[in-house]
Amino acid sequence: MPRARLHLIRTSAPDDVSGLMAHIDAGEIDPSKLVAILGKTEGNGCVNDFTRAFSVQALTAALGAETQGVAMVMSGGTEGGLCPHILTFEVLEDDTPLDAPALAIGSVITRDLKPEEIGTVSQIEIVAEGVAQAMAKAGIPDPADVHFVQIKCPLLTAARVAEAAARDAATVTTDTLKSMGFSRGASALGVAVALGEASPDDAIPAICTDPSVWSSRASTSAGIELMGHEIIVMGMSETWSGPLVIDHAVMSDQIDIAPVIDAMTRLNIGVSATLKALLAKAEPGTTGTIRGNRHIMLDDSDIAATRHARAFVGGALAGIAGRTDIYVSGGAEHQGPDGGGPVALIAERTDP
Amino acid sequence: MPRARLHLIRTSAPDDVSGLMAHIDAGEIDPSKLVAILGKTEGNGCVNDFTRAFSVQALTAALGAETQGVAMVMSGGTEGGLCPHILTFEVLEDDTPLDAPALAIGSVITRDLKPEEIGTVSQIEIVAEGVAQAMAKAGIPDPADVHFVQIKCPLLTAARVAEAAARDAATVTTDTLKSMGFSRGASALGVAVALGEASPDDAIPAICTDPSVWSSRASTSAGIELMGHEIIVMGMSETWSGPLVIDHAVMSDQIDIAPVIDAMTRLNIGVSATLKALLAKAEPGTTGTIRGNRHIMLDDSDIAATRHARAFVGGALAGIAGRTDIYVSGGAEHQGPDGGGPVALIAERTDP
Amino acid sequence: MPRARLHLIRTSAPDDVSGLMAHIDAGEIDPSKLVAILGKTEGNGCVNDFTRAFSVQALTAALGAETQGVAMVMSGGTEGGLCPHILTFEVLEDDTPLDAPALAIGSVITRDLKPEEIGTVSQIEIVAEGVAQAMAKAGIPDPADVHFVQIKCPLLTAARVAEAAARDAATVTTDTLKSMGFSRGASALGVAVALGEASPDDAIPAICTDPSVWSSRASTSAGIELMGHEIIVMGMSETWSGPLVIDHAVMSDQIDIAPVIDAMTRLNIGVSATLKALLAKAEPGTTGTIRGNRHIMLDDSDIAATRHARAFVGGALAGIAGRTDIYVSGGAEHQGPDGGGPVALIAERTDP
Amino acid sequence: MPRARLHLIRTSAPDDVSGLMAHIDAGEIDPSKLVAILGKTEGNGCVNDFTRAFSVQALTAALGAETQGVAMVMSGGTEGGLCPHILTFEVLEDDTPLDAPALAIGSVITRDLKPEEIGTVSQIEIVAEGVAQAMAKAGIPDPADVHFVQIKCPLLTAARVAEAAARDAATVTTDTLKSMGFSRGASALGVAVALGEASPDDAIPAICTDPSVWSSRASTSAGIELMGHEIIVMGMSETWSGPLVIDHAVMSDQIDIAPVIDAMTRLNIGVSATLKALLAKAEPGTTGTIRGNRHIMLDDSDIAATRHARAFVGGALAGIAGRTDIYVSGGAEHQGPDGGGPVALIAERTDP
Repeated sequence: MPRARLHLIRTSAPDDVSGLMAHIDAGEIDPSKLVAILGKTEGNGCVNDFTRAFSVQALTAALGAETQGVAMVMSGGTEGGLCPHILTFEVLEDDTPLDAPALAIGSVITRDLKPEEIGTVSQIEIVAEGVAQAMAKAGIPDPADVHFVQIKCPLLTAARVAEAAARDAATVTTDTLKSMGFSRGASALGVAVALGEASPDDAIPAICTDPSVWSSRASTSAGIELMGHEIIVMGMSETWSGPLVIDHAVMSDQIDIAPVIDAMTRLNIGVSATLKALLAKAEPGTTGTIRGNRHIMLDDSDIAATRHARAFVGGALAGIAGRTDIYVSGGAEHQGPDGGGPVALIAERTDP
Repeated sequence: MPRARLHLIRTSAPDDVSGLMAHIDAGEIDPSKLVAILGKTEGNGCVNDFTRAFSVQALTAALGAETQGVAMVMSGGTEGGLCPHILTFEVLEDDTPLDAPALAIGSVITRDLKPEEIGTVSQIEIVAEGVAQAMAKAGIPDPADVHFVQIKCPLLTAARVAEAAARDAATVTTDTLKSMGFSRGASALGVAVALGEASPDDAIPAICTDPSVWSSRASTSAGIELMGHEIIVMGMSETWSGPLVIDHAVMSDQIDIAPVIDAMTRLNIGVSATLKALLAKAEPGTTGTIRGNRHIMLDDSDIAATRHARAFVGGALAGIAGRTDIYVSGGAEHQGPDGGGPVALIAERTDP
Repeated sequence: MPRARLHLIRTSAPDDVSGLMAHIDAGEIDPSKLVAILGKTEGNGCVNDFTRAFSVQALTAALGAETQGVAMVMSGGTEGGLCPHILTFEVLEDDTPLDAPALAIGSVITRDLKPEEIGTVSQIEIVAEGVAQAMAKAGIPDPADVHFVQIKCPLLTAARVAEAAARDAATVTTDTLKSMGFSRGASALGVAVALGEASPDDAIPAICTDPSVWSSRASTSAGIELMGHEIIVMGMSETWSGPLVIDHAVMSDQIDIAPVIDAMTRLNIGVSATLKALLAKAEPGTTGTIRGNRHIMLDDSDIAATRHARAFVGGALAGIAGRTDIYVSGGAEHQGPDGGGPVALIAERTDP
Repeated sequence: MPRARLHLIRTSAPDDVSGLMAHIDAGEIDPSKLVAILGKTEGNGCVNDFTRAFSVQALTAALGAETQGVAMVMSGGTEGGLCPHILTFEVLEDDTPLDAPALAIGSVITRDLKPEEIGTVSQIEIVAEGVAQAMAKAGIPDPADVHFVQIKCPLLTAARVAEAAARDAATVTTDTLKSMGFSRGASALGVAVALGEASPDDAIPAICTDPSVWSSRASTSAGIELMGHEIIVMGMSETWSGPLVIDHAVMSDQIDIAPVIDAMTRLNIGVSATLKALLAKAEPGTTGTIRGNRHIMLDDSDIAATRHARAFVGGALAGIAGRTDIYVSGGAEHQGPDGGGPVALIAERTDP
């Protein structure tokens, strides 16, 4: 039976691969079994964040030929006290099955989008198709057992907008920062469609206009270094073994820690399991308020709203997790309710 | 017996006094009884933050002659989801005593410092003397019953450094941002000396060099608009009545929420009392790590370290408080342990 | 005959009125003759810039009743080496005419806009009407003799957008920063229509979509502190006397200093006249390039594009002017060509 | 005779090597002859700027074994309208000498410094020695014929400070951003000593304390990616041939364009030569003023002072150069007078 293995490796810089190499040299990570590497790098997480590409380049150089087939999803922005790190996911094969059900992983890389497809129904459809394929690869037939779908999606630069315009194709926006929101949103709606959380009829007109349509398990990040999508589905499968388990919660707003505490309890963290990884979405939301109180995130011309949100939600989650090496990604359009977001937790059962 | 009264008023801009005036017009605030106004304004909380002075000017204009004797402590920086607001403190006099002991308040304004006194033993001494005077005014003889000392202290600008240099007086630094740290630190050590938390022998050489010397109840903020100190002491006094009570906790680091939860429990918040105000210090700390994990706050040239810290610690506290209108101030030199800080909580007993 | 008088007063902070008061006390400025005060304050010049309102409040408090009828146009952002300052304009009356033609000034305050009028044909019409009225007040019948039209216009905040939405009125955008561009652009097109530089048919559909329609003499700045427009027209009039003269140039891009040097030559600056004030617009432009070379202003998520542009164009102009107390305003939508902007120069003839 | 060849290649991203490879493939650049690559990358140019290392990594990967012996000096920060680009310098050998004297280049890589040597007399000595060696390699015996010395120097991170402290070695500062200033300053003083512009007795006590001791030809930049120095000396040599020539000017402050215009005239730019490259230093200076007028660069907590300075001085120089692909580096401690800096100009004689 397949078995997932996960390592959380803290990094000293975006191009620091020393921890990864040490694990490989010690036989603790088998690069040929790697399926995905998620990472939080220390750039601004917005348009001109080159730490993501720098990290991908360093990891690619370190893994060499083994890079083939590894979905790399680097997310920028480790504001506040958040600790830069990578999460490596391998799929091993065991003769002796351990406890099923267990954490299962399936990943898919979609075709490249044309610039004018970003933020449109085409993107929703491509992503929905990719999610379905990834679920099949992960052996998860029931959407209810999917607990986390991480997607790296593309964005528009001034050059890409111009290239489309030269073919008389209009992009959904010419604003590079706004294009990231459209892309993240359409990708999240693609997840919602694939998981049955929204119908295509509801999803398509909602792209970045109707925040009431959302997925409870999508986590999408935009980057300059690709024009397609890297999709990683994680959930619980009866056909997988191993000590790792996964669950999720949905924060209704930026400070809604109760559902996350509940999920930690369901996973028996601190009792018969230890927290291995926490992955969350954070966003400023569209209302300008949190529980009726004004905030300044949308009106601050000095610091991007997503940076504010990552720091703030990161603090709320780091407080209850008791650690700062948690994966908090910004820009949660259609990912959880307006101002909130999904949180995935991966734990390791300590009891046999 | 004297009785403290507190209003938390959310503001729509730094110069928004409409909420204050509405309370005054409704007879809910008596301006002649005001002793202090603390506020969080939405500037960057660093050197070029003019929202603090703008707020003081608006409040002063609104209160007119009643401004006399009111200590105004505006602290800049409402990063993340934090809500700009002011806290008004009045001292009333009641014939019928309610439950003693109760929240007591004493405030003092010290003389102006010369630029070269900032960050030196002179500042420690002046502040210690002021704290003692404020304790006496508050009717709090035992330092153990002091739970919060808020101080607004001065800073150095290029002009003030030059003025001292013209008299051949060397300031502790020429860096304006660093001068804020020196001033906050020396003020905090003045509190530590006054409360018996540190001896003068330990405090004086420690100024911004030895983070192991600290006060558990000081909260100091630097501003450009004054050269003296505004000191407000809050604690529990047998000679005061009213439904308000106060306690404090010390966070050992940026995510140490347990002591704050304990203090909320001691105050019976949610059982027989409601949270009226939460005031905390946040800082990046000096080690570059939190519980062994690297953070980037000290190496980020795009966003000041204190801004990162306020957002992150603000999120941790807003999560457990369930609200964002909490007072989080940056720069916690000698206020709590390195990376941590004091948290004061004011509650209102709901049971008669 | 009316005579314009101008003082350039450097400020030490947004609320520094000491220089203005010194001139008044010395009899060099007659507050009852003030018609306009333009200023550059040191905030970020974008949405959350409170230095503008702070400055207006301080000037208003200082001038008291004399504030009536004085158009105050505070523009934020003194990046790079630019020096914060104010420009005071008075209109005096002389029995003995000096050299006509001379600098003439006319100012008008329009009615408030509803939020949904910002960035629409309504704004163009209201501004065009206001400009015509101001020209008449200035005694300038021929648009060719108008050399500078400064306008302070409104912007949308989250609150104003919500207020309009509550009446089922859709604003041109919900993005606060983008609303500043729409407002500046529509105001500039209003100037273009008033001066015959564009027809209404060309101007109306062009709002922030067609940068080829522009005014060569408009300078518009958006602020949070008003919902109407303050319009100041400056030009040369045969019916005005005095030593002040005005001319203008148009920079075709951010580094096109030649036309400005030509204008300085036409005004005989350095020969028989001294430069009294220089007022310019700066913008990043829409192409992402300058003379074919890529720039990063539109892709920088850490520093707003208008801040980059003010610093850069400010440097180019300060170099040829030989001084840093020049008025450089950001956001030049429809003000000069894409990437360029108008520059007005006021000189004082030294020869009798 | 040796002949210098220079290409200015504009880049689309920090890791864009396509232009370089195109020149190599076309036979216009011979990688085996490369001695230096200088570059301006689009990060913040301060502590957490990873674009420099990213660029070096991309260039290294592209050049492969040819990287050996090529001094790479990437400088971060292309604020305002400045265009990211690289400058490649080759040394060729010609049988038929062209016009001597001509541009000559010599480069040297020094040993690594220990963290505690940064900003001290050790650094001055190591750099002075390296400059002398580079002059010899360039065939420039007379310091008066040296027109530009570019140095990449190291900086302190929290980790390096801690490593030294663990050996009981005190670093000159613990502030990472300040360490860049100390390193740049000591390196520049090393150049001053080597070129006879200052004696060791004057230079050593002056490090970042006495701005009146400076070099007129040093240009130093600090980066996280090295602990030694990369030194490149450029000047005019009788023993070199080719159409390239070099001269320099010294700006006395941020807007002193006259000396640069004079140097352009001396080089006959626009008459019998074309400008090939312009390299300048920009700094905020220590006085807080420019020609008596206040600026905000040292008091702005939102934007680092060196970023402001690069944009502003960049604009002044781009205006007179008529182009934005100029090399402007921040942090000019001991490089030119306080607030000013050296400017080197390389031109190509168009007449045979």
